[in-house]
Order: sequence, then structure tokens, then C-alpha cells
Amino acid sequence: MFEFEIQACEGQARAGIFHTPHGDLLTPVFAPVGTQATVKTLTPYQIEELGASLVLSNTYHLYLRPGDELVRDLGGLHQFMQWPRPMLTDSGGFQVFSLAQTREIDDDGVTFKSHIDGSTHRFTPEKSIAIQENLGADIIMAFDECADPNDQAYIKIAMERTHRWAERCLGAKTRNDQALFGIVQGGIDPELRAVSAQFIASLPVPGIAIGGLSVGETKPQMLDTLDLLAPLLPQGKPRYLMGVGTPEDLIHGIARGVDIFDCVLPTRLARHNAAFSPDGRLNLMNAAFARDERPIDASCTCYTCRTFTRAYLRHLIAARELLAGTLLSIHNLHALVQLVKDIREMIVAGTFEANIPGLLKRWDNNASRAK
Amino acid sequence: MFEFEIQACEGQARAGIFHTPHGDLLTPVFAPVGTQATVKTLTPYQIEELGASLVLSNTYHLYLRPGDELVRDLGGLHQFMQWPRPMLTDSGGFQVFSLAQTREIDDDGVTFKSHIDGSTHRFTPEKSIAIQENLGADIIMAFDECADPNDQAYIKIAMERTHRWAERCLGAKTRNDQALFGIVQGGIDPELRAVSAQFIASLPVPGIAIGGLSVGETKPQMLDTLDLLAPLLPQGKPRYLMGVGTPEDLIHGIARGVDIFDCVLPTRLARHNAAFSPDGRLNLMNAAFARDERPIDASCTCYTCRTFTRAYLRHLIAARELLAGTLLSIHNLHALVQLVKDIREMIVAGTFEANIPGLLKRWDNNASRAK
Repeated sequence: MFEFEIQACEGQARAGIFHTPHGDLLTPVFAPVGTQATVKTLTPYQIEELGASLVLSNTYHLYLRPGDELVRDLGGLHQFMQWPRPMLTDSGGFQVFSLAQTREIDDDGVTFKSHIDGSTHRFTPEKSIAIQENLGADIIMAFDECADPNDQAYIKIAMERTHRWAERCLGAKTRNDQALFGIVQGGIDPELRAVSAQFIASLPVPGIAIGGLSVGETKPQMLDTLDLLAPLLPQGKPRYLMGVGTPEDLIHGIARGVDIFDCVLPTRLARHNAAFSPDGRLNLMNAAFARDERPIDASCTCYTCRTFTRAYLRHLIAARELLAGTLLSIHNLHALVQLVKDIREMIVAGTFEANIPGLLKRWDNNASRAK
Repeated sequence: MFEFEIQACEGQARAGIFHTPHGDLLTPVFAPVGTQATVKTLTPYQIEELGASLVLSNTYHLYLRPGDELVRDLGGLHQFMQWPRPMLTDSGGFQVFSLAQTREIDDDGVTFKSHIDGSTHRFTPEKSIAIQENLGADIIMAFDECADPNDQAYIKIAMERTHRWAERCLGAKTRNDQALFGIVQGGIDPELRAVSAQFIASLPVPGIAIGGLSVGETKPQMLDTLDLLAPLLPQGKPRYLMGVGTPEDLIHGIARGVDIFDCVLPTRLARHNAAFSPDGRLNLMNAAFARDERPIDASCTCYTCRTFTRAYLRHLIAARELLAGTLLSIHNLHALVQLVKDIREMIVAGTFEANIPGLLKRWDNNASRAK
């Protein structure tokens, strides 16, 4: 279980297979985010039909609502939301630090107030693992602290705490059918990142996550950090770049050895009427599309592009019809899932590096991040 | 074209086939409502998968947004919304009287202000037909005036105007690939209903709609009116009871010779977290469902009931996830579409009348109307 086979490499980029209890993941892979046990507006049928093989869900949200014990009692997350393929849960740490109110951090854990009703809760590494074991995803995450990349003094404190917490998560883990990934922190400090990579690589974990990126650093800082990490991380374990990204982030990330990505950007853009396209990011509310009989992207094979015109999508948006969000979510998720699949084929064929300039040009103007 | 074959009768109930340019309708049939060229929250794939064969769309809404000329230029309504099977548009009359602001009615037509932006517009019988020809549905409706059933004096005025307008609609019609239905009015006055039925039946129309019901009269008044009309309407033409209804309305309507129904109730209830079920109408927000591992209806074959528990649906609702509306819309629409299909089989088998008490009991407590 959780064997990772590398089928082909090109530079730092890898095409692999990660074996999980709910099936094989062909990597690199992009995971749609299903925060509350649902990829917003989409049925599991639609998620599968758009080509996704891995779905992420959020521990913080599910712990608060409907409750991880309820999910466990109803058969676990796969059964609850009827997603039969691999799943990943985060540790809850990132949301505690970004969403919850009035939190207090100590070396043992974090006390916070729910963003839903203000009630008080406490997460520790052991609690995060217990929740994730109740949820039952195939891939689970160590509880970590993600520091502001520009707060140099604090980054070291958070990194060292993250390391201690990773060991406690390993000690707390009881299920053998879940892969616990350690998380490399260290902000944008090269020395701390190297220390963190070395420490996390030394742990008996089947995969390694890269945290603390896409959280306020510049794009060059993110890429420099990935360049630094690529040779330091063990080749034989999958690498997961958390919360990234845009089409160009995926291209750059895969070129730097990343195997797994997730991001809310595709579904969030969909709710704001925006679609990825080779013509740049389109805002389909624009009146210019009112009579546009083309699909969003003539080369795209998703249900939305196979079926509907920009004019129809623009009408749905103008008429405030919720179907617009569904159709744009299908397209945006498919765009990233398919981009990563296409790159995988290029790695196998040994043509990825040669294609990078063309890929970056094709996905130009889709670059800005989710805010 | 527009031939109506009756395959079996049982009492007043009929099992028929209505031939349209976009395929055969097996009647009786229940049509989901796609007001703004979309059945709210559902893709055409989902509409077809839940078993629907006819979709209704609203002339008033599409005229205002995106505009009927735009729909025409983009290939018509089937092409625009990618619904390949039969469609029906209403005349716009009902919405002008129920939704639009400050309307003025005269014998020539109606001047009204848009509910969207307050702009002034005018519908006449000729204009309604011109719009419906631009939209291009298979079945179109004569422009009529639907009066308050309790305003006895006005019902007669509105009925006579409806008759004159029906003749003008016939005169204005130019397309041969659309079936124009006349509309019987007359409120709940037996004499006026008989006069209206006789007049509309005398027109060269391939189908007849029953208007002015489910708009404020009591349930017994509606059923009495249907009982009165059944023997007065020509056997050889399909009969469409507009804007009806609930499960029990469908059972009663079919028993009184109705062939076509439409209603917003299934999708409206879905948006209010309610589901049709043999246990009565369920409000799935109720905490009692939080750990309920049953589907909404164990005997239902829709995607929602085949796939999800009440507990999951309750979670989606509590978490304000839009997927809840999609899944409940699928179930509620399927419930009515399938109920009518089941009744059709009973008519063919000659067992409908014997089954009526059981059907009414099964769908008891799902009865109240959309408000």
C-alpha cells in the first residue's frame, strides 16, 4: 500500500503512480477541493466525468460541520459524499490559522473559536489525526503551523513546532490504510527550508507536502523555494504542493518535481463568472459574449465546452442562474486536471521541457492567484 | 406532424403519443419548467437522465432576457439551451399579469413594465406569436388573459378577450413546425367554461390548454371544472393543464383526461430544502435527518436516491451548499415525471382506476401547492 512508482522523469519532473486503497493515482495530478464534503455545485458523477481522480476535503470544516464522528458513523468520507476514488484531507491547521477567530497557539496545540458559531475548540496533532482517521481519506496530513513568509523571526519557531508536531502525528496514527504526509515548512528562507526538508525526509512517511507557499510570497520566491527543495526531497516519495495553483503554477511546479496539487481557484473563479482559456481568463458576464457562439475554449473537451456557447453561459450569468456556476466549475476544473494529464504524457514522451514555453504562452493571462 | 394517437383509455384517462418535430411525447407527461432557458440548477444531461421528455420555458422571461431575437439568431431555444427533445413555451400572458409592474390591458393587448428594470413593453397576440416563433418551441400557446377566479364579473370579459386573441394568434402564426394550442378560460363558472371549451374546440388547433386553474380556486373547484371539461373537449387532441401541480393534482388530472402538465413546484420546493416522499413532504433541514442513512425514498430510482443519504443532503443544506438544490431538484422532478409514467402504464394495463386510492394514499401529505 502507498507504493510510489516513477514511470518516467524529465529533469526534475516525474510521471508516477501512487497506489492508494481507493485506486491508483497517476501523477502529476490536480485535486479539486471539496471543502465541505462537496466540490461546490458538482455531483460526484460530474467530478469523475471531468477527469478528476483525487478530491481534497477540509478537516477544519468537516470537524465543525457535520462533525467527524458523524462522518465516521456514516461510513467515512468516501461513503458520505459518494466519491469512490482517492481522497485527501488536510490537517485543519491552515484553516485554524486563516479562518477561525481568536486563536491561541502553544506548543501543545491551538485553541480557537469556530467561524460558524464562535464556540471554542482545541486542535492538537493527536486531535487532528483522530479527526482525519474518522474522516478516512486515503492521504492525510500532519498538523502544522504555516507562518507568514515575511515574518522571518517567527518562521523558525513555526517550523520547529511543525517538526515536533509531525513526530506526534506519526505517534498518534493508528490506521494502516491512510498515508500520513509530513509537511515541509520554513517560509522563503533557504536555510530553514533545507533544514525542514531534511527533517521531514528523515521521517517514516510515504509522502511529503510542501506547505507555506502561495500564502503571500512573490512568484519568484515560490519558484526559488521549489528549485531549492527538488534535489533535497527523496525521489521515491510523492510530493504535494499545497493550495497551488494557477495553470502556470502547475507547469512550473511539475518542472520542479511536484506530483500533487490542489487549489480552490477553479471553483472560486467559476462563482465569479470567470473561465480559464487560451485567450486569457474570460469574464463571461461581459456583454461582448452576448452573441458569441463559440465555446469557452474550442480545444477543450469538457461537458461545458462540448455543449454550450459563451452566449448561453453569459445569459445564465446575467439571469443569475446557478447553472452558470456548475458549468464554469466543470470547465475550470477540467482545464487544470487535463493540463496536468497532458504534461504527464509529455514527461513520458520526454517532451515536457521542450513544451514548457508553449504551455506557458498558451496559459498566459490566467495567472493571477485566488485572493 | 402533431398527430395525437390515443393508445389506451380508462374512464376519461388516456395514454397517448403526441408527435413533435423533436420527437414523440408519451402522454400523460409532466414537463419540468425551465423559466430562463434552464431548469434551475440542472444540466440538460441531468434533465434527460431523470426521465423528462418535455421542457417548458417562459416567453415573458426570455423576451426580456436574453431577448427572443438573440435566441433566434443563435439557432432557437433547443440549440441555445441544448435541450434536444420537445419544448413548450407559454404565451407570456400569465407572467405579464402576475410578475410585471403597472400593466394596462386593452382589447388590443397589454402594456407593462419589466420586473427587471422597469422598462415599458407591449404584448399583443401577434407579438406573443412572433416571440414564440423566434424561440422555436414545438408547442406554443395562444396569448390569453387569466382572470381571478373569484372575480365573477371580470371572468367573462377576460374569457371573451381570450377567444378573440386566440383567433388573432392563429392568424399571426407563420411556422408549420410549431403546434399552437388554444386556451380554455372561464374561471370556475360552469357556463363560461362550457362556452370557452366549445369555442376553443372549434378552432383549428392541434391541442388545447386549460388555463385559469391552480390560481386561487379551491381544490374541489378545480376538480369540478376538470370534470365538466372532460366530455366537452375533443378526444383527438392533447389537453394541457397549465401550471399544475402536486402529486395528487397529477393523479386527479389524469383521471379527468389531462395529458400534459407543468409546474415549478418540484424545483421551488428543492430550493426550500423540501422533498416529495411517500412519508409526506420532507424538510431535509430538519435535525432529525442528521444521521438518517436512508435515501429520501427507498423505492425511488433517481440519481439522488440511488446515491445519497438523507444525512448527506441534510449536511449540504446545513452547510448552505448549492449541490443540495441540484440533488433535490433531480429527486422532486423525477418523482413527478415517474409518477405520470407509472400512471401511463396503468392506463395501458387498465389498472389505473383501481390504483387511484393507493396512489393518493402514497402521495398524501405532499399536497399543498406552491405559493
